[in-house]
Amino acid sequence: MNVDAFLARRAERTERALADYVDAWQGVPDALREAMRYSLFAGGKRFRPALALGAAEIVSGNDDVALPAACAIEMIHTYSLIHDDLPAMDNDDLRRGKPTLHKVYGEALAILAGDALLTMAFDMLTRTKDLRVIREVAQAAGVTGMAGGQVLDLESEGREISLDELRRMHECKTGALIRVSVRSGAMLAGAREDQLAALTRFGEHLGLAFQIADDILDVVGTEATLGKPIGSDANKHKSTYPALVGLDRARDLADEAMRSAVDALNAFGPEADDFRALARFVVERQR
Amino acid sequence: MNVDAFLARRAERTERALADYVDAWQGVPDALREAMRYSLFAGGKRFRPALALGAAEIVSGNDDVALPAACAIEMIHTYSLIHDDLPAMDNDDLRRGKPTLHKVYGEALAILAGDALLTMAFDMLTRTKDLRVIREVAQAAGVTGMAGGQVLDLESEGREISLDELRRMHECKTGALIRVSVRSGAMLAGAREDQLAALTRFGEHLGLAFQIADDILDVVGTEATLGKPIGSDANKHKSTYPALVGLDRARDLADEAMRSAVDALNAFGPEADDFRALARFVVERQR
Repeated sequence: MNVDAFLARRAERTERALADYVDAWQGVPDALREAMRYSLFAGGKRFRPALALGAAEIVSGNDDVALPAACAIEMIHTYSLIHDDLPAMDNDDLRRGKPTLHKVYGEALAILAGDALLTMAFDMLTRTKDLRVIREVAQAAGVTGMAGGQVLDLESEGREISLDELRRMHECKTGALIRVSVRSGAMLAGAREDQLAALTRFGEHLGLAFQIADDILDVVGTEATLGKPIGSDANKHKSTYPALVGLDRARDLADEAMRSAVDALNAFGPEADDFRALARFVVERQR
Repeated sequence: MNVDAFLARRAERTERALADYVDAWQGVPDALREAMRYSLFAGGKRFRPALALGAAEIVSGNDDVALPAACAIEMIHTYSLIHDDLPAMDNDDLRRGKPTLHKVYGEALAILAGDALLTMAFDMLTRTKDLRVIREVAQAAGVTGMAGGQVLDLESEGREISLDELRRMHECKTGALIRVSVRSGAMLAGAREDQLAALTRFGEHLGLAFQIADDILDVVGTEATLGKPIGSDANKHKSTYPALVGLDRARDLADEAMRSAVDALNAFGPEADDFRALARFVVERQR
């Protein structure tokens, strides 16, 4: 199974839909549209959209119905990166190998472009015509999800936290949005409750595997694979899995989470092979 | 007609609902909840919620149906104030006579509390079960509404803009959210198209009157009525109605907008008297 092809095909559709959406608005200040485009089209893997589209395809064989949710979640992910990079937050100069938005357009416009992407994501979400999807995405991005996790992350800087605290922080900060990506696609495709439950478990374990692998990459990766200086988390005295449990144990935990993700798909047949391959890919990119 | 009583009654219900909402979430980091509460309960007049509730009452005699939209719009308004006050934006130390959020909790938490309020507003909006309301609120807060207007505002600093540009900037920055406050309440109460059109016109003229009066207050007000240093707009070289057309002409324009707002209510009987009084109050507070 070719994960790159799986991701590329879905990324292409997502990017076309995102560009159509951002360009269709009349009367947007040029600088705002340019800033939003700069970050939206900065070479992201479109991992979350691929999850939404992939889940819909597993359930119904057709992923069109999940495209607005896929785009909206990518807009929310992009806003979160823009705000995370701000001087008052992580103060990062590089993102995916390019200068961060505030380095190019200034802080004020970066704050506003992030705000605008978050806001317009909910306009996009109304196209799903599904109140449950809108509500779950808002909650995954909100006080008990991404925004809450970001606060936990801020609070953990410069102090030793426990493995439980680290897991909880990541569940909020990145796990919730990955989980809701899968759930949105499944719900929009009309998943039965047992299908939705299985895909939700897949999303939860995948999110954990993804985060542990990301932490490992920050230690062993190259600047090229990472798109930002290596060791940047350690330099900010952020707690990571390798820092808390060592590199070998972190790799075991990532493998464990990957296997649990794959196991969650047992009720599905070959239609879920892309997701199985994706789970392996997520942890193997740090080898 | 006692405008203070009209506002106070609706403010009280809005605040109770907002407090219930913010306090009900389990697992929110304490600092995030406190920061959100600090700005949400900083003594706002709850002008936009009063418009949503008032419009619903005019249409159906009952405003309960508009309460979630009223709260969501106030959360969006609050987020916009938090982000506007940031050092990278207006760099204001005072808001409604109190230190701004970032002065008390730091910039990072202020950015995140704003993000969280904006995000959770859309969770709150799903309680309306009305996709049109969710979409219109998102658009009023987004690239062609508040966020777009804020960019126009940034771009107008330190240069002379035309009256048309000033009007356009305010239509986006403050007008759109005031307009959608009225429309949301009316739509949720089941307004007929002619009622919705009339109330929309009311909202548009009221928004304009509100903004001109605000500009005048910045020149002639006292720090006590304004809650921030007087002349702070002029000091930032922001264009205002008095600066562009003079104080007398600005007052005429405010009166004109107020009369147009009142005229828009002609199809309604005494049930719209509160709104008529509110329009007069909006321009008279600058005398």
